[in-house]
Amino acid sequence: DLAIALAMTDVKGDRSLRPSKQKPHQDYYLKIVEEKTSGIVVRGAKTHISDSPVSNELLVMPSRAMQEDDRDYAVCFAIPVNTKGITLICTEADTKEPGNYFDYPISSSVYINDALVIFDDVFVPYERIFMQKEWPFSGDAAYMFGNFHRLSAETYKAVELEILVGAAVLMARYNGLERISHIQDKLAWLVQYCEAIEILGRSACEHCVSEPELDLVYPNPMIANIAKLYFADNWHQATKYVQDIAGGIVATVPSAKDFLNPETHSILEKYFGGKSGIPTEHRLKIIKLIKDLTSTYQDVLAIHAEGSLAAQKLSIFSLADFERYEAAAKRAARIDDGTTHPLYSQLPEFPQRILE
Amino acid sequence: DLAIALAMTDVKGDRSLRPSKQKPHQDYYLKIVEEKTSGIVVRGAKTHISDSPVSNELLVMPSRAMQEDDRDYAVCFAIPVNTKGITLICTEADTKEPGNYFDYPISSSVYINDALVIFDDVFVPYERIFMQKEWPFSGDAAYMFGNFHRLSAETYKAVELEILVGAAVLMARYNGLERISHIQDKLAWLVQYCEAIEILGRSACEHCVSEPELDLVYPNPMIANIAKLYFADNWHQATKYVQDIAGGIVATVPSAKDFLNPETHSILEKYFGGKSGIPTEHRLKIIKLIKDLTSTYQDVLAIHAEGSLAAQKLSIFSLADFERYEAAAKRAARIDDGTTHPLYSQLPEFPQRILE
Amino acid sequence: DLAIALAMTDVKGDRSLRPSKQKPHQDYYLKIVEEKTSGIVVRGAKTHISDSPVSNELLVMPSRAMQEDDRDYAVCFAIPVNTKGITLICTEADTKEPGNYFDYPISSSVYINDALVIFDDVFVPYERIFMQKEWPFSGDAAYMFGNFHRLSAETYKAVELEILVGAAVLMARYNGLERISHIQDKLAWLVQYCEAIEILGRSACEHCVSEPELDLVYPNPMIANIAKLYFADNWHQATKYVQDIAGGIVATVPSAKDFLNPETHSILEKYFGGKSGIPTEHRLKIIKLIKDLTSTYQDVLAIHAEGSLAAQKLSIFSLADFERYEAAAKRAARIDDGTTHPLYSQLPEFPQRILE
Amino acid sequence: DLAIALAMTDVKGDRSLRPSKQKPHQDYYLKIVEEKTSGIVVRGAKTHISDSPVSNELLVMPSRAMQEDDRDYAVCFAIPVNTKGITLICTEADTKEPGNYFDYPISSSVYINDALVIFDDVFVPYERIFMQKEWPFSGDAAYMFGNFHRLSAETYKAVELEILVGAAVLMARYNGLERISHIQDKLAWLVQYCEAIEILGRSACEHCVSEPELDLVYPNPMIANIAKLYFADNWHQATKYVQDIAGGIVATVPSAKDFLNPETHSILEKYFGGKSGIPTEHRLKIIKLIKDLTSTYQDVLAIHAEGSLAAQKLSIFSLADFERYEAAAKRAARIDDGTTHPLYSQLPEFPQRILE
Ligand SMILES: Cc1cc2nc3c(=O)[nH]c(=O)nc-3n(C[C@H](O)[C@H](O)[C@H](O)COP(=O)(O)OP(=O)(O)OC[C@H]3O[C@@H](n4cnc5c(N)ncnc54)[C@H](O)[C@@H]3O)c2cc1C
Ligand SMILES: Cc1cc2nc3c(=O)[nH]c(=O)nc-3n(C[C@H](O)[C@H](O)[C@H](O)COP(=O)(O)OP(=O)(O)OC[C@H]3O[C@@H](n4cnc5c(N)ncnc54)[C@H](O)[C@@H]3O)c2cc1C
Ligand SMILES: Cc1cc2nc3c(=O)[nH]c(=O)nc-3n(C[C@H](O)[C@H](O)[C@H](O)COP(=O)(O)OP(=O)(O)OC[C@H]3O[C@@H](n4cnc5c(N)ncnc54)[C@H](O)[C@@H]3O)c2cc1C
Ligand SMILES: Cc1cc2nc3c(=O)[nH]c(=O)nc-3n(C[C@H](O)[C@H](O)[C@H](O)COP(=O)(O)OP(=O)(O)OC[C@H]3O[C@@H](n4cnc5c(N)ncnc54)[C@H](O)[C@@H]3O)c2cc1C
Repeated sequence: DLAIALAMTDVKGDRSLRPSKQKPHQDYYLKIVEEKTSGIVVRGAKTHISDSPVSNELLVMPSRAMQEDDRDYAVCFAIPVNTKGITLICTEADTKEPGNYFDYPISSSVYINDALVIFDDVFVPYERIFMQKEWPFSGDAAYMFGNFHRLSAETYKAVELEILVGAAVLMARYNGLERISHIQDKLAWLVQYCEAIEILGRSACEHCVSEPELDLVYPNPMIANIAKLYFADNWHQATKYVQDIAGGIVATVPSAKDFLNPETHSILEKYFGGKSGIPTEHRLKIIKLIKDLTSTYQDVLAIHAEGSLAAQKLSIFSLADFERYEAAAKRAARIDDGTTHPLYSQLPEFPQRILE
Repeated sequence: DLAIALAMTDVKGDRSLRPSKQKPHQDYYLKIVEEKTSGIVVRGAKTHISDSPVSNELLVMPSRAMQEDDRDYAVCFAIPVNTKGITLICTEADTKEPGNYFDYPISSSVYINDALVIFDDVFVPYERIFMQKEWPFSGDAAYMFGNFHRLSAETYKAVELEILVGAAVLMARYNGLERISHIQDKLAWLVQYCEAIEILGRSACEHCVSEPELDLVYPNPMIANIAKLYFADNWHQATKYVQDIAGGIVATVPSAKDFLNPETHSILEKYFGGKSGIPTEHRLKIIKLIKDLTSTYQDVLAIHAEGSLAAQKLSIFSLADFERYEAAAKRAARIDDGTTHPLYSQLPEFPQRILE
Repeated sequence: DLAIALAMTDVKGDRSLRPSKQKPHQDYYLKIVEEKTSGIVVRGAKTHISDSPVSNELLVMPSRAMQEDDRDYAVCFAIPVNTKGITLICTEADTKEPGNYFDYPISSSVYINDALVIFDDVFVPYERIFMQKEWPFSGDAAYMFGNFHRLSAETYKAVELEILVGAAVLMARYNGLERISHIQDKLAWLVQYCEAIEILGRSACEHCVSEPELDLVYPNPMIANIAKLYFADNWHQATKYVQDIAGGIVATVPSAKDFLNPETHSILEKYFGGKSGIPTEHRLKIIKLIKDLTSTYQDVLAIHAEGSLAAQKLSIFSLADFERYEAAAKRAARIDDGTTHPLYSQLPEFPQRILE
Repeated sequence: DLAIALAMTDVKGDRSLRPSKQKPHQDYYLKIVEEKTSGIVVRGAKTHISDSPVSNELLVMPSRAMQEDDRDYAVCFAIPVNTKGITLICTEADTKEPGNYFDYPISSSVYINDALVIFDDVFVPYERIFMQKEWPFSGDAAYMFGNFHRLSAETYKAVELEILVGAAVLMARYNGLERISHIQDKLAWLVQYCEAIEILGRSACEHCVSEPELDLVYPNPMIANIAKLYFADNWHQATKYVQDIAGGIVATVPSAKDFLNPETHSILEKYFGGKSGIPTEHRLKIIKLIKDLTSTYQDVLAIHAEGSLAAQKLSIFSLADFERYEAAAKRAARIDDGTTHPLYSQLPEFPQRILE
């Protein structure tokens, strides 16, 4: 099977400057440096490119709308990862000990490997180019990618949240806390958070948008953005609740090496027990799971992967049907400014009026 | 057309005591005081009963699960509002001036009239009784009512939120604020809040539950509860944003009488203007709309009508599929406690293991 | 005794335009329209001016920093309220029934009367002028006023919060809820909110700033702004908790007229009782108090009076000792960029270093 | 110099059971197992004991109030760490690479080493015992310890927050974001958070409580608890803001080994640059600092060390002067229930009254 990595995000340098205005060099966004008869030569670097070291192809596209003087940056193509001139610098793995699934159940199992992908004057043949300096379409491409990408987030996030909620409820049970009112409150909140992501993500598919002339169907952009924002905006609240339920031991738990060491095993077996009947090993494994699931890596993945919080808010703002909202408010406030709306007509006159 | 009001909520007296344990009297929950050959006699009071004074019939049902010694309180029936022995004491209307739609666009248009309905030894004939002391079913009835009632909330709330968002965006436009970053941020949040309620409410219908043997179809309980909780839990955040955008004038705006008074009209016309081109009257009407929409009445309606926040959390907690979450967490943490789950099987052995 | 009202806030028209750029007229900020030998003539309107109708004097000052072409707007003076050319248009009172302290315990007792004060070419003699077109000082004046004004907020807010917390705890007791875990949780939060405002406000005085050359002592600007922001930013959370504890009756409570009416008194006495031993009248009075304390007026007062949330954040941002924070971070990260700081010196070399 | 570690927290087993009711053994709380003529023998384990492996002495005390049948658990003493029968099992260090201050600036510098301390039938001579089965005083000891401990939190947390705010502001500057409105908003919030902890902690000292008969002075319990709660309750919000400002690179940054490797240095130097003029090394160091500062360890330290959120809320609830709040509310609501209060007397009669 072939795998493809999506290389959109540029390194960006100074965030207040457009691609062509960057200093001291203008390679902070990937760009075309030469146009040849058989193809183009590109330079720049894409960053945080998930799974790129284990993919066959890179799909490279612009990360933002461009203006005319940024036209060299409006470029989109697909290329094998092992093309000459491409270098990958890998993210440091989050686990401290590959293969140790007791202490690092998540980070030893899953290494997304979001690499920095450098294009050092890479040649791209014409048949692999989708966009070449058509700068007015750059924003559309980035935006349409977002529609799919937000949803892809929801699919894996919903599962991640099932694990997180499961860890919280098991920890509560293992510690004998499952009937405590404030714990149930927090678990209920976690459940609604997990389920809401699932419901909203599914709804983005059920209410997908189709553009028949283009033979294109895509997730409902408003719903997909709301789902992603809801997930990302509440992640830190969720980890706070889970860590609160789990107790200080998430910070201070010793290594599995101590637990499995015959000299210390029985002590830890005895003292790290929870509710009677629960094996200490299970309790420790859930503690380790919580530690791994609420790491900096997971936090930043939650906020930034598939677009930062600001990106979702911007999309929601620009997709908003403000005319409908305004018509609703004008009707309620009895403002007649000559505008009409199919859903919200003016209210009929009421029997009495103060204005007369 | 006939209208029916739903009378579920009891006055409840001391919230820490069950119906039959209340002091100094045991009429804080509606109960059967006599059983006759042709029917029953009931006593008690239902409170906050929306639209009851303008309805034909009352559908009366228990507001909670009952235990055996509360069996007299397990009663459900329908009865005309003008039956002998029924007294209604109406809620004070929220508007200061009925008919004044300028100053009170919402509260002068809509008066839900949630009355206290007193049953002073009211006779209910047998053919109108649905439950009579079958106390074990009392909780089911209350719970099933909740399923429909949460959804009914979402239907009118979604519209109310369109008005609220519309008021916010119009105020921003009228004040020349629509391009300010923090205002757009707040508007984006308000849009997602409004749309999320619509999406979730709709999803509760699309994923309704049907019980074929009972010929019964009802809104998905988990989704309906999540939608209602999301609405209620965020209402105060929403009004805060809207009031923040609108400015201090929501508190200090003079009466329409001053605006419409020929002596003062031109002064107010001049100084209460906003962005050039917007009639002052429109700006004032939106200010009044915001004032009316963010009243104490609306706040409490948001939190308590269709069940308090705690009621939704309780429902979500009791509906939660904890087994699924636990299975997901156990799989991720590699805990094998002998349980199995159709969705989450144990992870296969990885090549290396620390435990050996 | 003489009373003085502080007239700073201008009506402002289009918030995106500076005073001299407003359209269609340039009177949205108070300005000097004529300079005579014995004084000046001013035109414009100050809005939300608390207690102005019951004050002797108005202290008028600019509401923002000015640029050179706004110099006519840089004006500060004191003037009797009954000066020729001054008109006051009063805010609508919040109470529905002046004198009815049962139903409107707050709004019938306290009517701040934040009027619109119009200056229709008012003459101000020279001896009453403090600033006349010295535009570079306009921002300083507004800022220094803020220092005192934020603190004045905390003084009355701390007391208001004692009433709010008291209402919540009484309602909990009257309803038999005082031992319920989630109620105690909310009460604890309310207590810390109330006390934090008191502590921070007091600390702003204890750590006041004195400028001996100017013979000037003023509240600590950073602390006063933090206190005001903490208050304003959390008010809606507080009212949500109080309304949640109190129940739906805050929305649906009938008028005192029904309670005091001999025909209906006994019914309400019986059914609106709470915990045994608490007079129904006391319970109803607390319900009315909560209704009045969580009104739109109080919400907007909380957010906007003494400057909007954005104003506090701006002040905090501009007062922040970023050099200290940066020095702390550089030390921790071992960044040596040549800067030094009295508090945070570079860390000494550690025994081992990876860089070598 | 001698160092002492404070060993209060027990391992606790099943959180729903008191010490003497635990199953399958009753050693989840440290207890006296034998009383001899010259001293006592204790068994149990204290957990999360910061710095215990590098201290000379342990001060051991009960972690909760005890009831009569838990009297064996009411024990307090000091003992050298290297006493016979004491075993320490250390927390796993958070750093992946001791000595690597580039990648792990915090976790390689600071290793609190919160060990599990096991007492396997340890003999404690009488002269080192402060409490022996005086169970009614157990709660007081735990509570008084909290007063000092909450404050000790604020002292180091205030500094930690200076580092955190500094990292955020440097990252904003390094990325060219310092003039962006939403970034300034977040920085302002972070500044107030940092300063509020400092102000509140200082105020707890300035308003300390002294009990002259006991020759005892201690931090103001209400203020110290509010400060700790404010810190802990907002930590996750703070890390969310900092991670949001910093961007996805906090998750995906490569190791310093790649940056310092001559083969890859120049690529990373070029592409990981930010605003022109900022050395890439400085930018990378701040990224690493943020990664280290927002780790699971720091999260859990924030929430649980010096007592969980619930502990602070409980303290605040039990310290609250509810009589004062109630008196304020009764006065405002005009409730006369016969109680009096030195601060809040009944309001005088107003001219008009509805009740007559
Ligand atoms: C784990 C992980 C995996 C990822 N996988 C992929 C992938 O496979 N493919 C891919 O293409 N991308 C991927 N991404 C990248 C992701 O889309 C970006 O992280 C995200 O878009 C944010 O960009 P950034 O990291 O450059 O942060 P920045 O853009 O630097 O954002 C930091 C902060 O600055 C603000 N900001 C930045 N610029 C401006 C501006 N001009 N005006 C106002 N505010 C501004 C942002 O709102 C944010 O608050 C991944 C990211 C992560 C963390
Ligand atoms: C505007 C409006 C319209 C309404 N319309 C209708 C209607 O048409 N028909 C109808 O039947 N009902 C109606 N209701 C009633 C609504 O369902 C109730 O308000 C809601 O269920 C809360 O009940 P309550 O008002 O008695 O508050 P309470 O039950 O007193 O709740 C107050 C607080 O106490 C807590 N609490 C109460 N008891 C306990 C306990 N035992 N343990 C722990 N915590 C507890 C709650 O969680 C809450 O925080 C309406 C309410 C409003 C506000
Ligand atoms: C009850 C009450 C009593 C008061 N008493 C007094 C008094 O005695 N004396 C007195 O002088 N004042 C008084 N005020 C006025 C108070 O200081 C102002 O309400 C406050 O400064 C906000 O100004 P505004 O009401 O004009 O709102 P606006 O300035 O219109 O603010 C509305 C929103 O727009 C935003 N905004 C506005 N302009 C900009 C901009 N250029 N860029 C970005 N965002 C912007 C704000 O951040 C806010 O979110 C009182 C206000 C109230 C509510
Ligand atoms: C990094 C670190 C350093 C520390 N250093 C020290 C130290 O030097 N000395 C020392 O003595 N201690 C120290 N502590 C311990 C700290 O005081 C505890 O972590 C804290 O009191 C919480 O206890 P716990 O970890 O056992 O969590 P738990 O008590 O298990 O709490 C977990 C959750 O369960 C809830 N809960 C628990 N029991 C109940 C109950 N009966 N009813 C209702 N809810 C309940 C809590 O509210 C919380 O939400 C340290 C902790 C950490 C994380």
